[in-house]
Amino acid sequence: MIPKMPRERNSKHIKNLSSILEKVPAAALFSHVSPDGDSLGSMLALGLALESLGKKIYYYNAGPIPENLKFLPGVDNISNLWPEELPEVLIFIDCAEAERAHSTINSEFLKHKQIINIDHHVSNSKFGTINWVDPKAAATGEMVYSLLEKMGVPISYDIAVNLYTAIITDTGRFSYSNTTPDSFKIAAQLVKTGIDLAGINHIIFERKTLPQIKLLRKALSNLELLHNNSIAVIVLSRHDFLDTGADENLSEGLVNYARSIEQVEAAVLIKELEDNEIKVSFRSNSWLDVNQVASRFGGGGHVRASGCTIYRPLKEAVKEVITALEEALNIERNN
Amino acid sequence: MIPKMPRERNSKHIKNLSSILEKVPAAALFSHVSPDGDSLGSMLALGLALESLGKKIYYYNAGPIPENLKFLPGVDNISNLWPEELPEVLIFIDCAEAERAHSTINSEFLKHKQIINIDHHVSNSKFGTINWVDPKAAATGEMVYSLLEKMGVPISYDIAVNLYTAIITDTGRFSYSNTTPDSFKIAAQLVKTGIDLAGINHIIFERKTLPQIKLLRKALSNLELLHNNSIAVIVLSRHDFLDTGADENLSEGLVNYARSIEQVEAAVLIKELEDNEIKVSFRSNSWLDVNQVASRFGGGGHVRASGCTIYRPLKEAVKEVITALEEALNIERNN
Repeated sequence: MIPKMPRERNSKHIKNLSSILEKVPAAALFSHVSPDGDSLGSMLALGLALESLGKKIYYYNAGPIPENLKFLPGVDNISNLWPEELPEVLIFIDCAEAERAHSTINSEFLKHKQIINIDHHVSNSKFGTINWVDPKAAATGEMVYSLLEKMGVPISYDIAVNLYTAIITDTGRFSYSNTTPDSFKIAAQLVKTGIDLAGINHIIFERKTLPQIKLLRKALSNLELLHNNSIAVIVLSRHDFLDTGADENLSEGLVNYARSIEQVEAAVLIKELEDNEIKVSFRSNSWLDVNQVASRFGGGGHVRASGCTIYRPLKEAVKEVITALEEALNIERNN
Repeated sequence: MIPKMPRERNSKHIKNLSSILEKVPAAALFSHVSPDGDSLGSMLALGLALESLGKKIYYYNAGPIPENLKFLPGVDNISNLWPEELPEVLIFIDCAEAERAHSTINSEFLKHKQIINIDHHVSNSKFGTINWVDPKAAATGEMVYSLLEKMGVPISYDIAVNLYTAIITDTGRFSYSNTTPDSFKIAAQLVKTGIDLAGINHIIFERKTLPQIKLLRKALSNLELLHNNSIAVIVLSRHDFLDTGADENLSEGLVNYARSIEQVEAAVLIKELEDNEIKVSFRSNSWLDVNQVASRFGGGGHVRASGCTIYRPLKEAVKEVITALEEALNIERNN
């Protein structure tokens, strides 16, 4: 038995979806490309629940499945082949746009089917025939939990592992500001199934490949502090990636090492993806608007986290980025 | 109003303590030396609550207060001077032994006063006149929360910051296996006060001093992998500490970088504290009993985490430690 949890803002959607899903014999589930723990965990949890009710479920993700999510129960059922025959009900999970699931989905295609759109991104384009979008949910996994609760589906161990992974991924293990009392209340219910918290956290947040550790070592040895430690810069050249055997996507999170240093206001990670293709991630700690800094290079994002791509040689890009940060920080330059 | 939360296993203790504390006019609170977030957070939360009821509270910690806990509300009230006049009631928080609070406390001293002992360590020696020891609590902060709930003290913002810090410290932001549904339920109540989760997590887990980052950089550049990456070794010499300006205690957690690499079974951090005084931390990932390995050097600990001190020159200690790990892992050596 699942204890009740009031989620009034969603009760109409939940009631409606619950009665639709109880009736359908089959559904195809879609999650977004470059999948994360929320998108896969939410999709698998909903799918496993519907399967337990005897429905035929098709799981789609364009892939590839990241190494650290291959432990998710049911992950082997996910296909990267577009289903040959589509059931009447298509459910998009954690996709702000239908195109996030598959690049060639167009509005013509979407007209023919019943499209259920379950997502927590504020930017969701409401492409479905039913759109349940709740930006207050820290993770789509929280929404799926509420739906299963309403449907009275028992939360199995496998469903709990998937939903717990969804929530810890999107809340940074309950540390981001999107975390709400509901996030904790749902986690309290999920852990009652006896899931291995420490093991899941190790796989998601701690376990690293050797190239990842080598890339971190390289990033820290390249770390430079400027202007009384107010600016921290990490530059990674193509040579550094080749040297460490690390993919560009393994550099995710490295900018946080620069940002973590207590005196630093502006942190930046500058990566050479190709000759003349330089990807830049900006972070700030207290007051600097790095959205403005990134927008000078045609990029953008948030006040404390933003990014851009600069199509110039690495050396020039580094110089321009540092100059832009110096100007934003009102630092008198000596040249 | 605080919602009820059943904690039956503690209800007698809570009822008893609650009625004692409601009556006393004053109390002295003690937390353990080398304080952590649980010990200070729990002490401050209880003290602030009792102060809100008009009690006179003395806060004692032998100190020093770690940099990353100086933000705790009420921390400035903590004294490292032993109180000149002791009130009738002394409350020891998160101390497995009374000596953990102050080295010269002896049993003679303890006879004269009413000693309340609130702790979650299984090893607690029950030194108090009232001993409330609950090893099932992930943090002493959870016990304090239950007590305040019973006493009907409103959880203020400041109390919530202290209890939340206590819980995230001892659960590794809800990722260790000691985390229970209660940990999450209590967190759900605490965050309703509007505390800044992201800010607290940044201070406790992310913010680093420059020497810390330099030490991490040094540790990773000294990292060596042996025997098909089954053993990961980090050696830090006295020179490395001098070079980075880092205290030995800033090396806490570095062994986890060695342990995090996916092929590694045995990870070891070897630190030269003084000439001929080498501190060793062992970790294992899946099966190796590092308690046994440490015990060969007169140390010990747990199956997956242990330590020892070797009184020999660094080079010799490193060689002996690696040999011991090779033997434990049944690796054929080539020499």
